[in-house]
Amino acid sequence: MIVLDGKATSAQIRLEIAEAVKALYSAGKKTPHLCAFLIGNNGASETYVAGKVKACEEVGFRSTLKRFPETISQQELVEEIEKINQDPEIDGLIVQMPLPKHIDELTVTLAIDAKKDVDGFHPTSVGRMALNLPTFLPATPAGVIELLKRYHIPTSGKHCVVIGRSHIVGSPMSILMARNSEPGNCTVTITHSRTTNLKELCLQADIIVAALGKPEFLTADMVKDGAVIIDVGITRVPASDTKSGFRLKGDVKYDEVAPKCSAITPVPGGVGPMTITMLMLNTLKAVELFGK
Amino acid sequence: MIVLDGKATSAQIRLEIAEAVKALYSAGKKTPHLCAFLIGNNGASETYVAGKVKACEEVGFRSTLKRFPETISQQELVEEIEKINQDPEIDGLIVQMPLPKHIDELTVTLAIDAKKDVDGFHPTSVGRMALNLPTFLPATPAGVIELLKRYHIPTSGKHCVVIGRSHIVGSPMSILMARNSEPGNCTVTITHSRTTNLKELCLQADIIVAALGKPEFLTADMVKDGAVIIDVGITRVPASDTKSGFRLKGDVKYDEVAPKCSAITPVPGGVGPMTITMLMLNTLKAVELFGK
Repeated sequence: MIVLDGKATSAQIRLEIAEAVKALYSAGKKTPHLCAFLIGNNGASETYVAGKVKACEEVGFRSTLKRFPETISQQELVEEIEKINQDPEIDGLIVQMPLPKHIDELTVTLAIDAKKDVDGFHPTSVGRMALNLPTFLPATPAGVIELLKRYHIPTSGKHCVVIGRSHIVGSPMSILMARNSEPGNCTVTITHSRTTNLKELCLQADIIVAALGKPEFLTADMVKDGAVIIDVGITRVPASDTKSGFRLKGDVKYDEVAPKCSAITPVPGGVGPMTITMLMLNTLKAVELFGK
Repeated sequence: MIVLDGKATSAQIRLEIAEAVKALYSAGKKTPHLCAFLIGNNGASETYVAGKVKACEEVGFRSTLKRFPETISQQELVEEIEKINQDPEIDGLIVQMPLPKHIDELTVTLAIDAKKDVDGFHPTSVGRMALNLPTFLPATPAGVIELLKRYHIPTSGKHCVVIGRSHIVGSPMSILMARNSEPGNCTVTITHSRTTNLKELCLQADIIVAALGKPEFLTADMVKDGAVIIDVGITRVPASDTKSGFRLKGDVKYDEVAPKCSAITPVPGGVGPMTITMLMLNTLKAVELFGK
């Protein structure tokens, strides 16, 4: 059984990105520059954005963090996005979610120029992904694909069951696993809250991607011997024996599932560390695709 | 066993579109106007475009057919598309495929303003579909959804197996069947040339959408009792007993599969007649979404 080590893989990719930044510099091209918008004072959002800014430093990108008060109007926020869209210095823009309730997430997503949409959430990015055209892939599914690729996990002709159909993970995951590329070329079954026979389907799967957000949902009796298990879930569960008072749990009951698998991602240290790194890769791609 | 009659359903929808056109007129809005580009002298393309122009007349749309010689350059064609993009009189533009070999289909698809992309092939349309936002749905999958809806075929929680992953049918079909809407909410398995256990998967399916383009591929031994069968295939097969010298065959071996089904689309007269009607519905939608 192989543990798919997202932390080590992520570190390796960041080294490669740093090399690519140096190569851009040598070729007289611009240094990739990511801009992050942070609205209000959400503690978790602060942590996420800080991680993104730190990753930029690590790989040699420029970064700009723009903070806005909780009270900013939707119109003002869209105008600020417009400024970044027009700014040739900035290659990628992310607006950290969640937003205050008076601001519509979709309006904000649509306001970002698709050429700077390094989160890969804009309809144009999603459509280009579905059509197998060069584009920004959403970070979490892209991280899964990258892990499968770097560990040489065979996917062609395999049956992949995706649990969850969110726009951010499950749905793009199913598109990426089914399309004609490597990794890819899976027979893909997408399952969700309306699915009536999930256990039966999971037992047929060569690869399971669990992305429903229910701690320890996938148990050993749902997994066939030798399957590849990708755990995208990450939930804070109260714990009396940790300093923080909680523990991170995936969607997979790791201790009992791992012994049956041919490969599995741990939580933490599996898919999670890949996500910010994929954002860095998208920002690099922004310069390669659209940079001067 | 119910035969899903695409011809009758299509006729009914065209009546409804004609009513909507009258309502637009009464409200002082514009008459939907479809523009079709026909390049070269392909006989089948002539027939398809003629059918589209005729459908426009039937529902009370304006239509413009622009013919270009086989020798038109890609640049000239893109410039002609640009003119239509800028023309406020025209609501929808289709460029009949296939194109001459020196013209890249993707370049042409991307040149069409997404707001006039009534074929639903532009990445922005595909992405908006995947995100469940209002948009132009590709005509053939939209026709299947409409048939399921009008015949009140239950889909929620059902297992739908899609055979084929083309950008025009299989892939959007799987997105539409899986998403959170009615019809929709299926557990969806997308299968293709790399799938190793197609028969086994089909035997589990409550709904099968056959869209691989192989005449009479789906046989009775691949179908469970009571399944719903949607046949998207349409291939000309030589026949000595018809005036034309050929006969249209679907991807389903109808005679042996039909008795096992709860519902099935015939070929011809099933999904086929719905396709042009869905193009009309998209053109109407163009006025509703973007028209003055």
